Amino acid sequence: MTDKNGAKGLFISFEGIDGSGKSTQARMLAQALRAEGRDVVLTREPGGSPGAEEIRALVLQGDPDRWSAETELLLFTAARRDHLERTIRPALAAGKVVICDRFADSTRMYQGLSRGNLRAQVDALHDLMIGVEPDLTLLFDMDPSAGLARAKSRATVEERFEDFGLGLQEKMRAGFLALADEFKDRFRIINGNRDIDVVAADVQACVLAKLA
Amino acid sequence: MTDKNGAKGLFISFEGIDGSGKSTQARMLAQALRAEGRDVVLTREPGGSPGAEEIRALVLQGDPDRWSAETELLLFTAARRDHLERTIRPALAAGKVVICDRFADSTRMYQGLSRGNLRAQVDALHDLMIGVEPDLTLLFDMDPSAGLARAKSRATVEERFEDFGLGLQEKMRAGFLALADEFKDRFRIINGNRDIDVVAADVQACVLAKLA
Repeated sequence: MTDKNGAKGLFISFEGIDGSGKSTQARMLAQALRAEGRDVVLTREPGGSPGAEEIRALVLQGDPDRWSAETELLLFTAARRDHLERTIRPALAAGKVVICDRFADSTRMYQGLSRGNLRAQVDALHDLMIGVEPDLTLLFDMDPSAGLARAKSRATVEERFEDFGLGLQEKMRAGFLALADEFKDRFRIINGNRDIDVVAADVQACVLAKLA
Repeated sequence: MTDKNGAKGLFISFEGIDGSGKSTQARMLAQALRAEGRDVVLTREPGGSPGAEEIRALVLQGDPDRWSAETELLLFTAARRDHLERTIRPALAAGKVVICDRFADSTRMYQGLSRGNLRAQVDALHDLMIGVEPDLTLLFDMDPSAGLARAKSRATVEERFEDFGLGLQEKMRAGFLALADEFKDRFRIINGNRDIDVVAADVQACVLAKLA
């Protein structure tokens, strides 16, 4: 973790468009590392701590126009702050590997680029209230139409972020690739169009190199 | 309202320590202005819009240590943003008088001074996500022990902000007076130790002078 606290663990975030396979891959990585005897915390955003999960429910359920992009940004930042304090920092301080399904890069994309064009506010708020980046970010890059088909096959009450069509998925894919270029030091791009086990092997290789 | 939008109405906030009588006085002012035929929106923070009320419930109920001062600050700012967008701005744009029981000055005091000593973060967050001050702020100044006795006689599930004793009330009183000095242009100090109707007449005189 890029942090002043001298955390001992490793903080890995998984990013990508909906349906890119990142959640499945996060679970597979956690399993593989645990099989090696490592202490792993598998978590996700929004959510990841009891308070943050309550905020998640408040933001994601109900009418899509319930919150403005700015209010949503503040709520997600509140959830991230809680998640960081209660789950991520304690785990890193104990030397664990933290695998987080989405982190601040998703906010840079969804609130910063698609919903509100709020990137400047997203960055200022991150610097002010979060101030932490993962040590390693794996971007699951994927054909947007395949990703969309996969995302749509999952029905949940929290689906409104996945309900904006192919145009948005293409814009998000381009946005994530631009973000990977912006933060070259911590991003690794994983080709998510391949067989699930091939992708998993690629992920493990990236992480083991970082742990070595 | 100190705003770039050229709002036509008048935005008044009521501030003070718990038990200072401000909520009662806010209701009395609303009644007096309505009796004169004015359009008044009486509202309060945290809360004041359906979304902000949900955030209020999330913050104020439950274990006092449920949220850190920073997370609480973010949640209150989210609630304020929603309140501003859905209740305050539309009312001011329609030329109404908005009477708000607590606004950003309460955050400067409670999150900025007492809970977290976060004044710098409170100010930066306000500038970034709110950016609005009332036209007039009435500070109900009151003997802290009398205020505390009055606050304690009210039992609610949201009482934890009132549960920190006389030392805090004294610190808050001094903090509010310092804030009134910092924002001289919009603050008026109302002596809340007097008879309720005398205080109400004082409040009305202040507001009518501003409306004239």
